[in-house]
Amino acid sequence: MNPPPSTFDPRWLVGLDALAEQSIGLSEPNPRVACRIIAPDGRAFEGHTQHAGGPHAEVMALRAAAAAGADLRGGSAVVTLEPCSHHGRTPPCCEALIEAGLARVLVALPDPNPLVGGRGIARLRAAGIEVQVLPPAHPLAVATRELNLGFLSRMERGRPWVRLKVATSLDGRTALPNGASQWITGAAARTDGHRWRRRAGALLTGIGTVRADDPRLDVRLVPTARQPVRVLLDAQLAVDRQARMLQPPGPVWLYCASDSANTPHRAALQALGVQVLACPAAGAPLRLDLEHLLRDLAAREINELHLEAGPGLNGAFLRAGLVDELLLYLAPTLLGPGAPLAQLDALHALSGGLPLAFTDCSAIGPDLRIRARVLPRPAGGVAAGQ
Amino acid sequence: MNPPPSTFDPRWLVGLDALAEQSIGLSEPNPRVACRIIAPDGRAFEGHTQHAGGPHAEVMALRAAAAAGADLRGGSAVVTLEPCSHHGRTPPCCEALIEAGLARVLVALPDPNPLVGGRGIARLRAAGIEVQVLPPAHPLAVATRELNLGFLSRMERGRPWVRLKVATSLDGRTALPNGASQWITGAAARTDGHRWRRRAGALLTGIGTVRADDPRLDVRLVPTARQPVRVLLDAQLAVDRQARMLQPPGPVWLYCASDSANTPHRAALQALGVQVLACPAAGAPLRLDLEHLLRDLAAREINELHLEAGPGLNGAFLRAGLVDELLLYLAPTLLGPGAPLAQLDALHALSGGLPLAFTDCSAIGPDLRIRARVLPRPAGGVAAGQ
Repeated sequence: MNPPPSTFDPRWLVGLDALAEQSIGLSEPNPRVACRIIAPDGRAFEGHTQHAGGPHAEVMALRAAAAAGADLRGGSAVVTLEPCSHHGRTPPCCEALIEAGLARVLVALPDPNPLVGGRGIARLRAAGIEVQVLPPAHPLAVATRELNLGFLSRMERGRPWVRLKVATSLDGRTALPNGASQWITGAAARTDGHRWRRRAGALLTGIGTVRADDPRLDVRLVPTARQPVRVLLDAQLAVDRQARMLQPPGPVWLYCASDSANTPHRAALQALGVQVLACPAAGAPLRLDLEHLLRDLAAREINELHLEAGPGLNGAFLRAGLVDELLLYLAPTLLGPGAPLAQLDALHALSGGLPLAFTDCSAIGPDLRIRARVLPRPAGGVAAGQ
Repeated sequence: MNPPPSTFDPRWLVGLDALAEQSIGLSEPNPRVACRIIAPDGRAFEGHTQHAGGPHAEVMALRAAAAAGADLRGGSAVVTLEPCSHHGRTPPCCEALIEAGLARVLVALPDPNPLVGGRGIARLRAAGIEVQVLPPAHPLAVATRELNLGFLSRMERGRPWVRLKVATSLDGRTALPNGASQWITGAAARTDGHRWRRRAGALLTGIGTVRADDPRLDVRLVPTARQPVRVLLDAQLAVDRQARMLQPPGPVWLYCASDSANTPHRAALQALGVQVLACPAAGAPLRLDLEHLLRDLAAREINELHLEAGPGLNGAFLRAGLVDELLLYLAPTLLGPGAPLAQLDALHALSGGLPLAFTDCSAIGPDLRIRARVLPRPAGGVAAGQ
């Protein structure tokens, strides 16, 4: 069954990327999906994924059509991600599209969820619906992949997409020798940083940053329908109960070394609502196993992990090869001696540097925002610190 | 005498900024100027400043008109910089415009040269020519100022415009702890760097960089009609005669401490064609007086000074408040410990940082090029290192 491409009108795709983005800060841990249904009478009905347990994009579009009294039999649908075929928190969207009597469905990106895995498309085709999938390089397929890189990472790699956020001076300093670091960047950059916090499933920092800066680590400079989980790495369960990030709003997960998990301090933290989780650890000072941590966060349905920590923890994530992307705010100042963005081991050759690819450089107020992806090391290359 | 603006056709200004840019790498130390003359019959003739001692923009345009047999009497001229009224290396352009019988002249920017200083405009008006000057915020006035910021700096401040060029990793490193620094950035960034070298009157480095990297410090990756002067700061006259930057092409000026200027080494260097210049110095290690140096370079008609040195000399220029602009190539890599872009003193407060304003961020191959202007310190602010 190879329907001619002319069956679908390219104009049906316009704006679906922006519509799907409206699920940011709302649909966690579900993917960010948009759907547009075109009735045979030419009217179009749209929707995007709502909060977890709420309706998916397809159901939102079907509801809009039903509210308008539209007859969808013989109509078409465009959906940015393959419709689900399984009973999760909601009934499968495939069945809803079939029941509506649609004749054709265009899918921008197949779903990598092993519970879906092409079965949504197969189910639609088995019901006689003509299904097309966009080529992977199509702009809407690329945009869908970018928008859902956290969800895709969790499904495909079993760990969240890790975005390391840091603010430095133009000479690469995150703090002065005396520890002063607030604020290196301006108000516009801090607001933009909250926009990136908002899209994360969890915000992570370490006990060193809590002691030095006592951050609230929430989303407050931009509106949001939900607060990300705040994750604290505190191997020895040493955090003060007054720490601001342990207070409302939003859940707090505290990871400590397995043998620190049953101290008397634990009950006091749990009484505050903090979820204390054990993680394997080794070394002196005690370091949590970050690979285990990321697997555990993925199992807890964290798609995008926003890392906002000090040079020590940043370095540990980078040395372990667990950072996917840098989000760097560069302030228009030179500070001289001070803390680097990450503690890394000294190299003997420039080829040993951690390879990145810049993906964006934008002015944010007086600062620059630079985004960079961490690249896989070339075959035969040396690891950081070697 | 206030002629109506309608006398001038705005289309006469189009493209004059790009025409003036053709004097880059050619007209040093003369300003980069374009001229367009419009004959009464509607034909337009153009020119830009040639090599020093060669014709100015106005003369080039007049020659083009003469070659075409045009009668310019009653015609108009647009010139990006006020025409000269003095006998320098060439006769005054004012007289040539008057002799051609032009009726009106539009000037984008008055000349800050004290030898011109409004006298060119006064001379034209005295001859009955209608003269208009663009407002300072007009795009062509702004472009003329930017293109000639070195010439303007020399005329207005008695020192060159100092552009500090540096290549760093994303974490602000210019070299590894073992000194490895070639190459942090890619081929495209190095070629772009030569484009900036080309527009400078002089390229400056220090003896430390010569010992570590032995640079040629010339323009070879882009075509150029002339080589900038190469300037070496070598307080104790310690440079090896084999150093690559002492070899052809182009002149070399070596600044050493006044009491180092007459060692036996000096004659050997002069035999190579190196001009050995004495400069006041103080301290241990001996440091040249950079303010004196810049005054001397201005007296030698250097407009733009391109500084390409190590952290020590970069820091000395920055601490002295003598850098006007940073040209920073940022490589997509993290290097960990290593040399900073400049040796600066430790600060006690973030407000003590050297204030900058970003003016550009562009992708150059896989690297980013960031330009930043050094801002005056706010009143009541603390100096670097305090």
